[in-house]
Parts: sequence; structure tokens; C-alpha cells
Amino acid sequence: MSLDPELSARLKRNDAGLVCAVVVEHATGDVLMVAWMNDEALERTLATRRGTYFSRSRNELWVKGETSGHVQHVREVRLDCDGDTVLVRVDQTGPACHTGTHSCFDSAERLLLADES
Amino acid sequence: MSLDPELSARLKRNDAGLVCAVVVEHATGDVLMVAWMNDEALERTLATRRGTYFSRSRNELWVKGETSGHVQHVREVRLDCDGDTVLVRVDQTGPACHTGTHSCFDSAERLLLADES
Repeated sequence: MSLDPELSARLKRNDAGLVCAVVVEHATGDVLMVAWMNDEALERTLATRRGTYFSRSRNELWVKGETSGHVQHVREVRLDCDGDTVLVRVDQTGPACHTGTHSCFDSAERLLLADES
Repeated sequence: MSLDPELSARLKRNDAGLVCAVVVEHATGDVLMVAWMNDEALERTLATRRGTYFSRSRNELWVKGETSGHVQHVREVRLDCDGDTVLVRVDQTGPACHTGTHSCFDSAERLLLADES
């Protein structure tokens, strides 16, 4: 498998060959997590509709939920205006965060500035 | 002004000293854009409630809407589980994207994979 050449030409990868992936839950609209994709991760995500990323710490492809079971069925993928970020809309099974919370932004101590209203 | 030391210690900056900022519109829940923040951009965002970022292309601090008028009033900021991304909830004045669309993910040609349902 390889990425569609037309799509490939539109990607603006960082120095490590990656684009940013913002993952949103379809049912709630919640931003679940932010991860990274190389060409292969994006190609596999589009082909399989399984959320697939590139782990910068492990330096390898990573199918979300492969070990935890907390998989993502991908409903939609959009590229942003300058080609360096994709927005991935998913149905999330179980918690998205490895800490066990629904999203990676959930716990109270992650709040830096409270809504004033 | 400088960033709170306790917060600073929790940030996992990339090689360029930046964290990723995912910007969500409060009223709609739409992901508007993805940008980057250095310590000063985050500190100013928290202190002024104006969406403030670091431009990697211009290599300078950038108050969103400073020239266009399309400013962001920041309602809430959250850090993610590993400290390399902030989720910024805003009231957006005008279009968020420099191309004139509501969000940076809006136009039809940015759709890579359509919702199958």
C-alpha cells in the first residue's frame, strides 16, 4: 500500500515526516487525543478505517487499541488548510486516553484556565 | 511575565520549544485550527484570554486576529495527559481560517475520507 500521490503532494510533513492528527469523537464532538501520522499511518487509516498512528517514542506504527481493545472506527478524515494536520472523526470504543479517562484532556488537574462564565 | 514554574515543569515541549494547541469553538464544539505555543504564547493566552500562538514560519509571537480582527476570546485551557498539547476553548470572532472559512478543515477538497453513514 502507498499513499495516493495527489494526497501525498498536499501533505506538509514535519522534519520527522509526520503530520498532526486531532481525533474527535463523532457522538459527542469531544477532542479525544492528539497523535501523529506518517504516510503509512495515514494510508492505513484511510484504507482500514482503524485509527492508526506513528508512535514517536517507540518509533513504530501503532494501531490504536491493538493491545487495550480501545479501538477507533474512523468515520471521516479531513486535511487542514496548510496540509500539516488531519482531523479524524471516530467512534471510540472505551476510554481514548491510556490513563483510563474518556479523553486525554479530562482530569481536573489538566485544567489550566477555567471557563469564566 | 513568565510561566508558572509548576505548569512549566509539566510541559513537554518539542525540539523547537513548542507545544501543540488545538483550538475548539465553544458555541459549536468545532475544531477551528491547530497552532503552536511557546512558553510566552501560553503565558499570554492564560493572562490575557486572547488566543496567542507562536508562528513557526515567521518565528514570532502572534496574537490571533491582530491584523484580521478575527480574534479569539479564550474561555478555557486544558493540558493533555503527556503535557505536549493544550486544548483551547474559544469564542471566535469571524472565520478562524486565513482562507476565510469557518475552520481550517472546512472546504470540500480537504475531505480525505467521507463519513460512511
